[in-house]
Amino acid sequence: MQGIIAGRKPVMEALRAGTGIEKIVFLLGVQGTVIEEIRKTAERSKVPVSQANRQQFRELASDATTQGVVAILHQGKTFVGVEEIIAAAGARGEKPLVLMLDSIEDPQNLGALVRSAECAGVHGVVLPKHHAASVTSAVVKASAGATEHMLMAEVTNLVNTLGELKEQGFWTVGVAVEGKTLFTAFDYTTPVAIVVGNEGKGIRRLVREHCDTLVTIPMYGRLGSLNASVAGALVMFEAARQRHAS
Amino acid sequence: MQGIIAGRKPVMEALRAGTGIEKIVFLLGVQGTVIEEIRKTAERSKVPVSQANRQQFRELASDATTQGVVAILHQGKTFVGVEEIIAAAGARGEKPLVLMLDSIEDPQNLGALVRSAECAGVHGVVLPKHHAASVTSAVVKASAGATEHMLMAEVTNLVNTLGELKEQGFWTVGVAVEGKTLFTAFDYTTPVAIVVGNEGKGIRRLVREHCDTLVTIPMYGRLGSLNASVAGALVMFEAARQRHAS
Repeated sequence: MQGIIAGRKPVMEALRAGTGIEKIVFLLGVQGTVIEEIRKTAERSKVPVSQANRQQFRELASDATTQGVVAILHQGKTFVGVEEIIAAAGARGEKPLVLMLDSIEDPQNLGALVRSAECAGVHGVVLPKHHAASVTSAVVKASAGATEHMLMAEVTNLVNTLGELKEQGFWTVGVAVEGKTLFTAFDYTTPVAIVVGNEGKGIRRLVREHCDTLVTIPMYGRLGSLNASVAGALVMFEAARQRHAS
Repeated sequence: MQGIIAGRKPVMEALRAGTGIEKIVFLLGVQGTVIEEIRKTAERSKVPVSQANRQQFRELASDATTQGVVAILHQGKTFVGVEEIIAAAGARGEKPLVLMLDSIEDPQNLGALVRSAECAGVHGVVLPKHHAASVTSAVVKASAGATEHMLMAEVTNLVNTLGELKEQGFWTVGVAVEGKTLFTAFDYTTPVAIVVGNEGKGIRRLVREHCDTLVTIPMYGRLGSLNASVAGALVMFEAARQRHAS
């Protein structure tokens, strides 16, 4: 099935990223500032635009909350190899900062993590091929279009990938409730892979054992843990803070 | 309508918080480790437990994802006054740290913000009575039960409340893309109210004008903004970090 991006902000972001949109379809009669902005940007970018009545539009958009606009993609998200992520960091003159997601199940969390990663200047996201949410239109939407900008790699075996990264000088850091190192006490200025685990179960044992360090976020209340996407964002932005400290 | 909490983890958290549960209802035949834990904790806490068949259970739980267990609350979330939040901070020998939410619309975001606030040691959350998501069972669930632990105040006019807080020595800090102060450069060790705005529109103009400072989170990618609940969490945990730095 062909990929779509639904919703005004996600479509606008995808247009700005300038990649992979075959055409944009508006619900007949839809109006608004952002709709006009999308129309103009599409025209400038020479992306074809069409209109559909309510029934045609429903057939296009499996998701209900389209806000009257969808972008139809040339194809699904194109994944890259991990080496391309490392090369992209090198091209920016930066030490690689990679987010590795072990079995995130909720599309909202996956999207939010990719969005936060993009905002924190992470160079790429590594996902397992199995046992995890894949990059559906719900994920693209939850990411506010960040999946369009972000280099993403799908790998068969996270443990093998962690091993390869370590051979290339990466520090591998798991975010775990049981971690012994404060997340603010770790040095993220070397090449780093930040590993975030499943919402309920955390990082799988084998993956955890291949992390050089487990960092923890101190809890000052009575709950035991943060939402996985919030925990990931805190660690990524701590890494960004350290890397941009002058 | 009587409030309910749906889902295994939220019910467990509410039980642990020990407040306001009238009884717990299991779907007939439901099993599992957490279910057993809930059963035992309820017994210890002398909370009545009953079972319902599928039809009765559906009538109880408006939310589809109950995971076979709901807690029926004595009443809806009890709101407190802002002065009780300040008193609670005083009782812990801490300077008050308050989260103020201006027109958060998405129950997921509201729940996530309350969860992060609880984990960051925030003393209370202030919500506007109108134009915002209220504390529904979806919010309770998204908060992983944090709404049960957290002091929450509903106020008619955020601007008035900001004024009152300032008179009591608070610094009022808005989180805004257009802020001029880095969120890590602000001193959160005084009494502080952190203001987080609407997902799309940010903080309303009048509320923004009553903030002493607008702090911003630097964006290192191409997107313009983070998810509201992630932005709020970053600022709250920066406040927690500063307050617990030794």
